[in-house]
Amino acid sequence: MTKARRIDLNADLGEGFGPWRMGDDAAMLGLVTSANVACGFHAGDPDIMAATFTRAREQGVALGAHVGFPDLAGFGRRPMAMTPREIERAVAYQIGAAQAVAALAGARVTYVKAHGALANLAERDAAVADALARATRAVDPALILLAIALSQQVLAGERAGLAVAHEIFADRAYVDDGRLQPRSEPGAVITDAGVAIARVREMLAEGALITVTGKRLKTPIDSVCVHGDTAHAVDMARALRAGLEAEGYALSAFAGA
Amino acid sequence: MTKARRIDLNADLGEGFGPWRMGDDAAMLGLVTSANVACGFHAGDPDIMAATFTRAREQGVALGAHVGFPDLAGFGRRPMAMTPREIERAVAYQIGAAQAVAALAGARVTYVKAHGALANLAERDAAVADALARATRAVDPALILLAIALSQQVLAGERAGLAVAHEIFADRAYVDDGRLQPRSEPGAVITDAGVAIARVREMLAEGALITVTGKRLKTPIDSVCVHGDTAHAVDMARALRAGLEAEGYALSAFAGA
Amino acid sequence: MTKARRIDLNADLGEGFGPWRMGDDAAMLGLVTSANVACGFHAGDPDIMAATFTRAREQGVALGAHVGFPDLAGFGRRPMAMTPREIERAVAYQIGAAQAVAALAGARVTYVKAHGALANLAERDAAVADALARATRAVDPALILLAIALSQQVLAGERAGLAVAHEIFADRAYVDDGRLQPRSEPGAVITDAGVAIARVREMLAEGALITVTGKRLKTPIDSVCVHGDTAHAVDMARALRAGLEAEGYALSAFAGA
Amino acid sequence: MTKARRIDLNADLGEGFGPWRMGDDAAMLGLVTSANVACGFHAGDPDIMAATFTRAREQGVALGAHVGFPDLAGFGRRPMAMTPREIERAVAYQIGAAQAVAALAGARVTYVKAHGALANLAERDAAVADALARATRAVDPALILLAIALSQQVLAGERAGLAVAHEIFADRAYVDDGRLQPRSEPGAVITDAGVAIARVREMLAEGALITVTGKRLKTPIDSVCVHGDTAHAVDMARALRAGLEAEGYALSAFAGA
Repeated sequence: MTKARRIDLNADLGEGFGPWRMGDDAAMLGLVTSANVACGFHAGDPDIMAATFTRAREQGVALGAHVGFPDLAGFGRRPMAMTPREIERAVAYQIGAAQAVAALAGARVTYVKAHGALANLAERDAAVADALARATRAVDPALILLAIALSQQVLAGERAGLAVAHEIFADRAYVDDGRLQPRSEPGAVITDAGVAIARVREMLAEGALITVTGKRLKTPIDSVCVHGDTAHAVDMARALRAGLEAEGYALSAFAGA
Repeated sequence: MTKARRIDLNADLGEGFGPWRMGDDAAMLGLVTSANVACGFHAGDPDIMAATFTRAREQGVALGAHVGFPDLAGFGRRPMAMTPREIERAVAYQIGAAQAVAALAGARVTYVKAHGALANLAERDAAVADALARATRAVDPALILLAIALSQQVLAGERAGLAVAHEIFADRAYVDDGRLQPRSEPGAVITDAGVAIARVREMLAEGALITVTGKRLKTPIDSVCVHGDTAHAVDMARALRAGLEAEGYALSAFAGA
Repeated sequence: MTKARRIDLNADLGEGFGPWRMGDDAAMLGLVTSANVACGFHAGDPDIMAATFTRAREQGVALGAHVGFPDLAGFGRRPMAMTPREIERAVAYQIGAAQAVAALAGARVTYVKAHGALANLAERDAAVADALARATRAVDPALILLAIALSQQVLAGERAGLAVAHEIFADRAYVDDGRLQPRSEPGAVITDAGVAIARVREMLAEGALITVTGKRLKTPIDSVCVHGDTAHAVDMARALRAGLEAEGYALSAFAGA
Repeated sequence: MTKARRIDLNADLGEGFGPWRMGDDAAMLGLVTSANVACGFHAGDPDIMAATFTRAREQGVALGAHVGFPDLAGFGRRPMAMTPREIERAVAYQIGAAQAVAALAGARVTYVKAHGALANLAERDAAVADALARATRAVDPALILLAIALSQQVLAGERAGLAVAHEIFADRAYVDDGRLQPRSEPGAVITDAGVAIARVREMLAEGALITVTGKRLKTPIDSVCVHGDTAHAVDMARALRAGLEAEGYALSAFAGA
């Protein structure tokens, strides 16, 4: 058995706000090994954060600060005209807030991941990726950056001296430069669990992203992202987990829980 | 010379939001030894927080997380129907956010103070005071609680095992139970700097609050609060500082800068 | 046959915000005759409002501005320390916003109803009820005030010269002064549809609220409120509608659609 | 004598929020003939709106709904990724809210103007300009659109069948296509009141924008915008008013007060 036979599953959790909820957090917490928890800017509030941290801790799920743009109405999915310095401060704010609420819940934030439009920007824009990494580093150099494989996020994390975990997506197609195919294009989102599982297995086995043209792009792979807020999210996560375990993978967090 | 001849001056700073500013922070930072910095719930945002932390650090002013109710429109001055548990989480969130933005600015938050309606509630309501103290303790037991002298805040801080700094107000009258006279009553706010200075000197010399009837209520006194957002705030702070220095007091932060 | 044999069913709709949704609006729009639409303060946003107005118009459902406290995080269920004048302005703001978005959707707001903590306050506090009624009157004197039967809301609406529609609750118990039994008390919320229907029929037949002790309190009854955001809300509404129709009632809005 | 000898001065007012204020509204209300009042999205709240409407009414100043992006933190100056339909609804919402609060204050909104990033987008982007005009038209076809001269706003207003008032800027340079020179470029903002007055006189006399190269672009001119939130705003407005009166212009609103 080698190190390559272990893999992490991560999903976005705690994405409610005030009276509203999103997705089936209870079910997902039984399936994933890492939970990206919204920090109050695009979703989440101190009460939802505390409840999510508590439940995740009880189930041994590792906790990440899921940082986004300050845009509840747009769920952090709209790019915002913020400078890298402004982004850096907004990211630090969210990480610190998450750490503190986690402490109250007897839990610990061990990694950081960008959400939505901020993640998309940081995927391609080195200045934004550096802002994300610098903020993470300044708050706590022991935090791991969960970065989109082969993106600017990886490079920025390495520049900042952070440990980087490399993430692939179970249900999204890649184009030949290693970027995600835009959701607006046909085939960009994979809804068939069988197809998704086969793809993930293949990428893990080859240590590479596999693009829509069949190109292989070598990369370490530490975590597989499953979406928590789409229809059938729980079914997809359950099937993926079962499929990976059947293949002999041990599901375990890349970071300590 | 004894330890009693040192005193701290604290004021609320960084109370802008987005495009808006409040008070003359630059002037106040040259006069006070501790800055209570708004954390984004009743005022403040990551950019204003970072700028305030940076300037305070440069001037050797100690930094506190000024935590309040999540109410920008009401500036945290309206009591909110939140349970102690909800308050605890909201306070932890703000402290963590402040610590993280301070880290980015190369500064360090060393104390916590409650703002506005939250401070008023925590002054009298043990459950709210405990929520404040518990949150502070959970985030970092080395944080000092800057508490209104002889209030529930002091007792809660001690129950939580926190170091407590005792605060008096330069410009507010006390009633015989040691509480602040409500602002709505005549004489509650002292606008004459000479009167304020004389009062502060007397309270420091006697180690006691002096009430409107002349009663003495013994208490340690570590810090004097001067308001930053009223008319003549800077004049009052300057006069108070000069008056205390003339009396032989060394102005210095109760917490490390 | 007579006017007394017509009754309106109202429910709270459009209670999402940004990416979040609440309740099954599509199902409820097929069952109720009046929709209380959140106006962006406790829930709702311009897009959700427009979508709700459009669907309601298409189904011939009458539209009300459901006005609340500016508190998304608390869903308008927390009392807020606002003066009657501040409430008056906040209510006017919401009504005007709703009218304008309705105009864009080719629809028309014909009544106003208070939500959550604002409704509770206006039920008992004449000054708050007057603020609600004055704001409604100032914006458009043709608007009907949908008021909790036998409450201060009714009196305030009459004082302001507004047409008042009197509302009873299908699933809530009344105490002897005509007020709703607090939700925290056992029996306050009626979850059995059969019981609810029997009660509503009896109250309609007698033209009176029936309290927990069996007391009859005479009142006009123009509308029955069914809750849209609870479990089984749709089932309750469907059963209630069927039960009333079986009894010979024509379901129709008290206000024009 | 002729219609051409009358001119309107407009400025942005009511740009505070909650505890914060911006600019010297009291002074500006004595100088301008039209007030663009923020509607709660980029600035303003129901209380500030009501106070501004009341004071403007008392001084006979005409009232416009100053509509912007929902972005208090960015003061509506950051472009937001909203579709034209979303913009249309957000604009309608704000206009209706302003009308209603004005009604409460015994005042009347007679025109609409776009603010900040929304104004910039609507200056050049026909789809955004059309959203602005359509929303205005749907809420009240009697509302006048105060449009940047020679911009897409003018064309969209005309397409929607609205009365359009054409606006020039006293303190901004124009480039040869009639657009404002970006603030980031040298000379874009005119700070010398004498220069500004001379320019405005010349543009009014010629019925044309005068660009940085001296080009004349013919346009009706109904209003001159003076900024309310910059240093010396009041001095500039006073000088401009005096200069125009000295030249024989009667200052009067393009819309009824």
